Amino acid sequence: MARNPPVISTEIRAKLDAARVARLATLEAGRGPHLVPICFVYDGSVFYSAIDRKPKRAPPAQLARLKNIEQTPQVALLIDEYDEDWTRLWYVLVRGGAELVSDPAERKRALEQLRTKYPQYESGMLTDDAPVVRITPVRVTSWGKI
Amino acid sequence: MARNPPVISTEIRAKLDAARVARLATLEAGRGPHLVPICFVYDGSVFYSAIDRKPKRAPPAQLARLKNIEQTPQVALLIDEYDEDWTRLWYVLVRGGAELVSDPAERKRALEQLRTKYPQYESGMLTDDAPVVRITPVRVTSWGKI
Repeated sequence: MARNPPVISTEIRAKLDAARVARLATLEAGRGPHLVPICFVYDGSVFYSAIDRKPKRAPPAQLARLKNIEQTPQVALLIDEYDEDWTRLWYVLVRGGAELVSDPAERKRALEQLRTKYPQYESGMLTDDAPVVRITPVRVTSWGKI
Repeated sequence: MARNPPVISTEIRAKLDAARVARLATLEAGRGPHLVPICFVYDGSVFYSAIDRKPKRAPPAQLARLKNIEQTPQVALLIDEYDEDWTRLWYVLVRGGAELVSDPAERKRALEQLRTKYPQYESGMLTDDAPVVRITPVRVTSWGKI
């Protein structure tokens, strides 16, 4: 993908920085879309998410996610917040390519950013060898009160 | 799809009834997954969501949603709630087939259920001719504190 990265407005950037959760849609061969909530960081150009060890055990869905990305890198990432006052609704839809980070330095940097954003990770839930997924935005659209 | 509907436990049913928002992943031909937040009702066997007129204008994404479903009925629906206490995290992932409701009686019933669940619809945002999508679950999986 040698196209220019999409322009992210200051307002959208603020939403991406503040958001604590996103939903990641991947494509499972033969079974259609797959969907999980993820913790993430946005570094100004790409998104990172780690395969961590959330309560009890790694859910099988996390493995599904990696397998799906390997087969079909196209993903959608949704950042939104529900509000009973519907005049306040908004969402940011990021579509792009997902890839497992293979460079150790990039992975280390991403893990540090994730640990900084989420103090919850400090209990050892995010090991140094945790797989990290990089999502490179191709199209970013937004709607509503942003 | 002449298979038996998946069994929904009492605990999962309670989560589905209480949830105010879900995220719907569809597949856009040639562009990978597409993702939007939706309001919905679950009637004990299927999910309904309407193409309403949320603040200002119908976002193009809603039209994309319908076009995608027509081409590829397989969808994923995620119901979850983020919490900073990660021991409380949970999600329900519904995978199934989506279809535009064509039967007027079924559509009327679904719109009534949506208006009952969401008082916000009473301001005329949900017209009697609003398109309604039915999502029939094929597989339901859950994770976390349910």
